[in-house]
Amino acid sequence: MKPLPHPKADEIELVSVLSALGHPLRLRAVRVLADADECICGEIVPEVPKSTMTTHWRVLRESGVTWERPEGRKIALRLRREDLDARFPGLLDSVLADPSA
Amino acid sequence: MKPLPHPKADEIELVSVLSALGHPLRLRAVRVLADADECICGEIVPEVPKSTMTTHWRVLRESGVTWERPEGRKIALRLRREDLDARFPGLLDSVLADPSA
Repeated sequence: MKPLPHPKADEIELVSVLSALGHPLRLRAVRVLADADECICGEIVPEVPKSTMTTHWRVLRESGVTWERPEGRKIALRLRREDLDARFPGLLDSVLADPSA
Repeated sequence: MKPLPHPKADEIELVSVLSALGHPLRLRAVRVLADADECICGEIVPEVPKSTMTTHWRVLRESGVTWERPEGRKIALRLRREDLDARFPGLLDSVLADPSA
């Protein structure tokens, strides 16, 4: 499996992060990831078909919201909390504090 | 001109706000509005064609990010800062604090 492209921390753009978070399934996935260290992608929103989530995982990764790494034949995901907190202080906290979604 | 629909403060949804902010032109417009009390829509990002911005103004209004009111034959826009700060404490501050875009 070829390495998955991720932006460096200082390449993460606010507008891309907001756009990535601005989707119900992606926001839900980020909430799950925020409560975990690392998750296997199929276990994050298990009732949603893999084919639906594939694009969403890519959006989250390419925007700099998540790290992905191969775990056998699956993908493990992790929230880039430290990078996001450093780049946009308070953003993730305010998003995760909202009880909706 | 018929009244423009706006969500009530307690109807504003986080995911809609994030999606509305997650576009370069809309984010730029919000930065301009954050520094003003009220703006005539054509003066906010004056170099962008009106036809381009029409959809963006609607997205911002329908998500609860802005108030719009008719001002003669034009539209005046205002950021719903108090509503957004009450619903999602710290969100707008963290977005506006970012120097990019």
